[in-house]
Amino acid sequence: MRILGIDPGTGILGFGVIDITKQKISLVDAGVITTPAKQADSLRLATIYDELTELLALHSPTVLAVEKLYFSQNVTTAMSVAQARGVVLLLGTKHNLDLYEYTPQQIKQAITGYGKATKQQIQEMVRVMLQLKETPKPDDAADALACAITCAQSIR
Amino acid sequence: MRILGIDPGTGILGFGVIDITKQKISLVDAGVITTPAKQADSLRLATIYDELTELLALHSPTVLAVEKLYFSQNVTTAMSVAQARGVVLLLGTKHNLDLYEYTPQQIKQAITGYGKATKQQIQEMVRVMLQLKETPKPDDAADALACAITCAQSIR
Repeated sequence: MRILGIDPGTGILGFGVIDITKQKISLVDAGVITTPAKQADSLRLATIYDELTELLALHSPTVLAVEKLYFSQNVTTAMSVAQARGVVLLLGTKHNLDLYEYTPQQIKQAITGYGKATKQQIQEMVRVMLQLKETPKPDDAADALACAITCAQSIR
Repeated sequence: MRILGIDPGTGILGFGVIDITKQKISLVDAGVITTPAKQADSLRLATIYDELTELLALHSPTVLAVEKLYFSQNVTTAMSVAQARGVVLLLGTKHNLDLYEYTPQQIKQAITGYGKATKQQIQEMVRVMLQLKETPKPDDAADALACAITCAQSIR
């Protein structure tokens, strides 16, 4: 089974693709989609839509795991994330993917067993679980992989 | 010139289509797209996407005017609106519409000349400007028309 994990955002959106079997979890692809801050939101969302569509064609995941928004003190940022999340959820439905959503706390709990783990702890666990030599960069890609791994564990 | 105004939301999204000439503004269509609260966000966003796509095919507007999010004390609601807004902005770009965005205050100012006008004052002005016998219902449709009219005035 192939899972696409997404850490949504308009300026930088992390993605991570993993394969899971009964025996192991393995990395397929990870990275980020970035859009320029000076562009209109509508163009940035269209870029995200187009690049994610390409990723779906390239990797053909059957499951989509998306990080849920947490309460943010910065409402402008939260809304920017939510707009991108709307595009991601739309794409998931349009491509008939099984959709799962996890809060940051659920991801921390699943990956490290501790709901208040640091970003560094998460990234180190992602590295170990995927048997990588180095932690995936940037943070947003690692967060997307953590979301995908959380989904893998909950499906199992 | 034909303008589609949108008051975004996931549970209820208002739309209003108007034609503008040098002489007058006239109503083409107005209404709401509703989605059930018990459905997953992804399905609700797909419904909004599909119904808006049909509206675009039916009316062929060249301009899209979308109400901008204001700061909301209820972050959950604001994020739900932002997700729907992401889908609306995406559609506007994909259909090559000229996109304009207005805050609620800008709309109130444009329609009534007063930035703190009540909903009733807005609706009454929309009714008069479009030469209708009754105010458009529900509120979300009237708000979408107010957004479209604001755009018409700024383009002129």
